[in-house]
Amino acid sequence: MKAEIIAVGTELLLGQIVNTNARYLSEKLAELGIDVYWQTVVGDNDLRIQEALNTALSRADLLIFSGGLGPTMDDLTKETVASVLSLPLEMDIDWENRIVGLFAKTGRTMTDNNRKQALIPQGARLLINDNGTAPGIWLEHGDSVIVMLPGPPRELEPMFAEKVMPLLRKEAGQIILSRVLKVTGIGESAMEEAIADLIRKQTNPTIAPLAKYTEVHLRVTAKTDTREEAEVLLDETEELLHERLGDAIFARNEETMADVIAKMLFATKLTLATAESCTGGLLAHYLTNVSGSSDYFIEGLITYSNRSKINLLGIKPAIIREYGAVSEETALSMAENVRRRADTDLALAVTGIAGPTGGSDQKPVGLVYIALASPDGVSCRRFNFMGKRENIKERAAIASLNILRLYLAKHYG
Amino acid sequence: MKAEIIAVGTELLLGQIVNTNARYLSEKLAELGIDVYWQTVVGDNDLRIQEALNTALSRADLLIFSGGLGPTMDDLTKETVASVLSLPLEMDIDWENRIVGLFAKTGRTMTDNNRKQALIPQGARLLINDNGTAPGIWLEHGDSVIVMLPGPPRELEPMFAEKVMPLLRKEAGQIILSRVLKVTGIGESAMEEAIADLIRKQTNPTIAPLAKYTEVHLRVTAKTDTREEAEVLLDETEELLHERLGDAIFARNEETMADVIAKMLFATKLTLATAESCTGGLLAHYLTNVSGSSDYFIEGLITYSNRSKINLLGIKPAIIREYGAVSEETALSMAENVRRRADTDLALAVTGIAGPTGGSDQKPVGLVYIALASPDGVSCRRFNFMGKRENIKERAAIASLNILRLYLAKHYG
Repeated sequence: MKAEIIAVGTELLLGQIVNTNARYLSEKLAELGIDVYWQTVVGDNDLRIQEALNTALSRADLLIFSGGLGPTMDDLTKETVASVLSLPLEMDIDWENRIVGLFAKTGRTMTDNNRKQALIPQGARLLINDNGTAPGIWLEHGDSVIVMLPGPPRELEPMFAEKVMPLLRKEAGQIILSRVLKVTGIGESAMEEAIADLIRKQTNPTIAPLAKYTEVHLRVTAKTDTREEAEVLLDETEELLHERLGDAIFARNEETMADVIAKMLFATKLTLATAESCTGGLLAHYLTNVSGSSDYFIEGLITYSNRSKINLLGIKPAIIREYGAVSEETALSMAENVRRRADTDLALAVTGIAGPTGGSDQKPVGLVYIALASPDGVSCRRFNFMGKRENIKERAAIASLNILRLYLAKHYG
Repeated sequence: MKAEIIAVGTELLLGQIVNTNARYLSEKLAELGIDVYWQTVVGDNDLRIQEALNTALSRADLLIFSGGLGPTMDDLTKETVASVLSLPLEMDIDWENRIVGLFAKTGRTMTDNNRKQALIPQGARLLINDNGTAPGIWLEHGDSVIVMLPGPPRELEPMFAEKVMPLLRKEAGQIILSRVLKVTGIGESAMEEAIADLIRKQTNPTIAPLAKYTEVHLRVTAKTDTREEAEVLLDETEELLHERLGDAIFARNEETMADVIAKMLFATKLTLATAESCTGGLLAHYLTNVSGSSDYFIEGLITYSNRSKINLLGIKPAIIREYGAVSEETALSMAENVRRRADTDLALAVTGIAGPTGGSDQKPVGLVYIALASPDGVSCRRFNFMGKRENIKERAAIASLNILRLYLAKHYG
């Protein structure tokens, strides 16, 4: 099956929004083993939507439209497709009632424009929208399938995942399952070296690496006749990858590193505090993105000045004088002191030079010390991160989380 | 002039990356008054690049390609365009020397593939790449202009802004200047009401609002014969907008709210501390994204637990017992106490319910109190934010910055 994605919306052509729908749909189609050869963006203009439709029908057999299903005069996708294919539009009574009910409930006034959202081309299948008033449409036309989806990602994404993917899987006649393993703390080239032979020789499941900012995602995809067979294949490959990469694999699918840490802290009932200098609160922000983090995250200190390191954290002025605020000694002392201060089981401390100013030959921009204090004592690691101020802050915060994750996995995993 | 943007790259069709280049180029072309009617994405495949080129030549007179200029066999944009237009490729000696020199300097081995980046179609103009080895290309062909740009945004964006935009302005024969005014703290509809007549009646400069996440951007664009005339028109309109919107306008162009605050704190030499609960460090993270922020940001406390609010910040247990951790009384006390503790001029405190759990009928998810302590005393504001946990954290952190900005503007502006 060859697919073309057609996004409709003048706001895309004005550069007001980025076409994240095309990325999302392309990724999901790749998971299904369907090739996308073209992505097209066209404005809210019937002649150009017509041209896009005719061109796509000539070179693809699966057309996915996003956008242009709303209630306004500018929303033309459904009308134009129906007109090109000479299909009359028919009212879907169930959907009309749903819209009527929705307006009655919220007390808003319903117009004829709202009602037009319940019109669908003759012979098409309506795809229920659980997050809005525009239904999606699945239309088989000759050898081609035309799918029309609403533009807002929070409507398009669940509709595609829950309503369209099952239909496409049936169309493809095979089960395609995939799983993402997230890897960090090992360079991209070191990782490729460790698993290059697997990537090369494996055909089912396939293994596809994708470098993200501070991590690499390995997407493992199996094609089989049944879900059970696919799961078995995925499990086998995951085990192989674990043998090679060990605890550099930190999470699966949608999980973040903060989620993984949260799980272990919930399970062990251990508590945590942080002392940050160069990351300026970002480490605590990541930790507190997890709902329920107040169960284990007791407090965080951002000791951004030497004055604060001394007064708030009780770092001895002699340590800062002798070794500097960015040093192993200061990091160790920060971790020990915040653990004692907050009376927690664990404490993370970060001190470094985020730049662009403040670096020297001995201590360049990007130099960061990260210390972990635990019931087993306190230890420190030194890093040299590249990039701009924001990048260094992010890399330092993620490296701190990773140190905590590895400690928890080793002692409580 | 009608433009079509053609992005080349299989990674786009696999959904591995999002097409931010198309958004960037569309926005810049809109600033120049050039209409974009189509955006197309095609893989690293010569036949399909050929088809995209021919189609675009039939319906646009400005074609902008991004990607496919690298050194590998997969990079086919330049070769395909030259072949379709029957133009031989010629070595640009200056650029060849530049690549040779670069490889000599870094000690890497240079291959013939690297050398092919210095080839340009006969009659084309080479666009210098200050951030990579692939030059851009400006090619006039009949009535059409074909521009080829490297794919990485950090190469494409400066090349387009510095090399291509001046050429396009000359092509257009007019000066087009624009300025962005950033607005916050006033609802989008309230803002539209305040300036609807200006948006409607103004034709030069035009005023175009664009709602961003926690702010609205007003892009003011003037077209004139000289730069001076354009600046005068922009100044006049900016004054008009200031009369209507007052200090809801917080910054211009690339400036962030943290930048604006930093400027005022640098100028006044005032110092700042923060005490955060629900924002979990995000407020301090925003403040410390500014280089040099250690001059004024002394420390931040993330008192995520009641225990921490009491032990670290000295909030009276009776206050938490009587009013709750999320209350005006607690927020006021947090701000006063952190200001005293850190011995700073100013202090911001945030406490609220980020959700999704922890809300009640009296205190729903999204309820946030923000207090500011200053030499003029301490005050508190109450907010009800909508959205997910991350959204509520972001909105609360931005609202805190805005309270500080308005205080500084009023007393020291």
